[in-house]
Amino acid sequence: MAKRPSPTFLSLPDPPAEHQRVVVVGAGFGGLRLARKLAGTSGFQVVLVDRHNYHTFQPLLYQVATAGLESGSIVYPIRRTFRGAENVHVRLATVQRVRPEEKVLDTDEGALPYDVLVIATGSKPKFFGDFAEKADALLTLKTLPNALDLRSWINQQFERALEQENADWRKRNLSIAIVGGGPTGVELAGALAEMRTHVLPKDYPDVDFSRMAIVLFEAAPRLLGGMSDGASNKAAAFLRKLGVDVRLDTPVQRYEDGILYAGKDGEHQVETESIIWTAGVEGAPVEGLDGLSKGQRIAVDRFNRVPELDGVYAIGDVAEMQTDAFPKGHPMLAPVAQQQADLLVKNLDRLQKGQEPKPFTYKDKGSMATIGRHKAVVDLPQFSFHGALAWFVWMFVHIFSLVGFKNRIVALLDWSFNYFTYDRSLSLIVRPYRRRTPPKEEAVEESVAAES
Amino acid sequence: MAKRPSPTFLSLPDPPAEHQRVVVVGAGFGGLRLARKLAGTSGFQVVLVDRHNYHTFQPLLYQVATAGLESGSIVYPIRRTFRGAENVHVRLATVQRVRPEEKVLDTDEGALPYDVLVIATGSKPKFFGDFAEKADALLTLKTLPNALDLRSWINQQFERALEQENADWRKRNLSIAIVGGGPTGVELAGALAEMRTHVLPKDYPDVDFSRMAIVLFEAAPRLLGGMSDGASNKAAAFLRKLGVDVRLDTPVQRYEDGILYAGKDGEHQVETESIIWTAGVEGAPVEGLDGLSKGQRIAVDRFNRVPELDGVYAIGDVAEMQTDAFPKGHPMLAPVAQQQADLLVKNLDRLQKGQEPKPFTYKDKGSMATIGRHKAVVDLPQFSFHGALAWFVWMFVHIFSLVGFKNRIVALLDWSFNYFTYDRSLSLIVRPYRRRTPPKEEAVEESVAAES
Repeated sequence: MAKRPSPTFLSLPDPPAEHQRVVVVGAGFGGLRLARKLAGTSGFQVVLVDRHNYHTFQPLLYQVATAGLESGSIVYPIRRTFRGAENVHVRLATVQRVRPEEKVLDTDEGALPYDVLVIATGSKPKFFGDFAEKADALLTLKTLPNALDLRSWINQQFERALEQENADWRKRNLSIAIVGGGPTGVELAGALAEMRTHVLPKDYPDVDFSRMAIVLFEAAPRLLGGMSDGASNKAAAFLRKLGVDVRLDTPVQRYEDGILYAGKDGEHQVETESIIWTAGVEGAPVEGLDGLSKGQRIAVDRFNRVPELDGVYAIGDVAEMQTDAFPKGHPMLAPVAQQQADLLVKNLDRLQKGQEPKPFTYKDKGSMATIGRHKAVVDLPQFSFHGALAWFVWMFVHIFSLVGFKNRIVALLDWSFNYFTYDRSLSLIVRPYRRRTPPKEEAVEESVAAES
Repeated sequence: MAKRPSPTFLSLPDPPAEHQRVVVVGAGFGGLRLARKLAGTSGFQVVLVDRHNYHTFQPLLYQVATAGLESGSIVYPIRRTFRGAENVHVRLATVQRVRPEEKVLDTDEGALPYDVLVIATGSKPKFFGDFAEKADALLTLKTLPNALDLRSWINQQFERALEQENADWRKRNLSIAIVGGGPTGVELAGALAEMRTHVLPKDYPDVDFSRMAIVLFEAAPRLLGGMSDGASNKAAAFLRKLGVDVRLDTPVQRYEDGILYAGKDGEHQVETESIIWTAGVEGAPVEGLDGLSKGQRIAVDRFNRVPELDGVYAIGDVAEMQTDAFPKGHPMLAPVAQQQADLLVKNLDRLQKGQEPKPFTYKDKGSMATIGRHKAVVDLPQFSFHGALAWFVWMFVHIFSLVGFKNRIVALLDWSFNYFTYDRSLSLIVRPYRRRTPPKEEAVEESVAAES
């Protein structure tokens, strides 16, 4: 009993005779949808593997980061989704690599043989240039721990600003730069600007928040690249009305001594200790696959098959399906992942019945983004609108997209409180966030202090 | 701008003329109450210092640990409590030491001169014998991060049990030992036993939870030492009905190779990786004070004054006030801290007016503990009762004790869901808990693996 037996195979019941084992990696929008649709069907044993024990509703992470929603409202324990589904087995494990020739997936909890493998591992932040080296000094927003770290960090910075007598340093503690004008960057900038107006002056009466800069940098000529020109322009106008410094056509260059340089020649400068990186993502593939695209995505055909590998599929953000309509691959959006999952379930069933699979076609149902109270933009296939109605539509669509009845009630409650009180009550620093690499000038300060 | 100016004094406005600066260390039950009562009064500038930016309702930490309540429901941002109170300044800082002769408190954010210092730093877990060396392998429950770590850890253990084919190891992963039969140990044991019956079999259908032992060790002959004999006996009976192995008169001895030895000769053994330590607390005093008691508490007189130090007071758990009724000091309970805070506010006012202060007398309003659904015990000064009524009383008293209207609503909602569904929805492993010192046998396993 002195030694815990090392796992060789992940502990699982054998699939019943004639059943195929479908291993799904990742319980994001694509993987979760696929496993749900396979739950209760005959012919398949489903093993859903994720490194977290919960599904994350990523579009609302920025709300957790800005103290508008409880963290528990936007995540849901994966096991609860599959209660009573006897053919679905949830396993918490970190995937190490796939061995496609043996049809085995290696995880830290043991090996997992499969008949069908569905890779639905999503995407991760991508850093470029000087920022690749300094990634540890950047804040991101892809996971719940990221969102909680961001919440802690900005609140820690406000506390530091309060304790700081030097006005220039105070400004550096207060200011926030957001890199990337996609939906996450836009929604975050709007939420921070509203906090600056309505919440922070009440909590920190001794701090002058007119010194708090919120700067949004976008390399392209417009925000929300995936949406209509009207929505882009309106979003920029809404943000500027809220006091966000929106800098279009302004790529960021480097971060040095606490200063972010942006613009072609680094002519725009922001002194800040808080850079939130939403500028780009790349695929987060499983190791063991050849021929990834430049964006680290796995090339798939119209049936989400990975070419030349038997029984291996990829769906969602990690899959690059090129078509005439999408020569660079489909956009990295939840509806793409979900629609691919829906079709793949049908195709797996067709294949088992000896029928031909059907090719994927993306149906764009529209997109939306919220900037602040009564300020949102909605693009539908036929028309676009914005303002208060768009904002209410955005809110209800998001509440009903949450998993779990109680999560919806609590989110509705939180938002109602925030709406009527113009307030946010969750400014908690539960786990203070400490950067792994402190910014350069702090290291300098410490050595100076040690010498003096 | 290369060097952040080192703080010398904590940044604060000077107190108005004729005002005394009251520095309160700790925003627990005592410190928060004191600062609230001084808010808006004239004659005092209050500086409330805490290392967290929120107040924790400690009696319900075990509910967060057992996935019954959202973490946000039992904590409340300190700043929000003092919005609009111009004479109260909240500072997030870690206290380093007090220099009583200079009347200065040193913090990591700079020095803080005081006229009156109120030490309300509470208590911390106390480990003895073999366990003092192995504290890193024990789980505690004094702070919100502790509760979240405990929640993560037990859920991680269930996941490991599922992945484990070896039945003995599986039992070790599942079993939980609780050391200490005070309110925290009793309430935690009851909540875990209810999870084992109602929640876990639904989430882990492949695991046989009859193999999960929940053992509660108490060195004294009865549980809930501070309550009546009737309450103690009833609590033990409730726990045993829920399947908890209650071991009275059974001090724990040592933890070795994954086995907890208890009883006079170590005759009771539990194989477990989860030992929750609620066996004792000691004062958490500020450095720089002489003459602490054996329990690390600060001796105070009937006016909560620290003898021979000008303007220094201690209240609550950290203060040891000996009286005829309490020769070993008052019990470490929230009502004692709150009543001492109430009196100290009056006495500070009396002193400022040149009047004599009044001595403290504790008014015991009763105590209660909950074991499970419809199972609680309540001791009132005149009589005791237990069962379903006691349970509802417990629940409403605790809901109304929470800080913040929204917290009460969300807690009520969570508890209503849990009550009607016999379920708990918050089994999230947001931040996996990793012990700093792995248990010995895991280290052995790794070296064996490296050699083979």
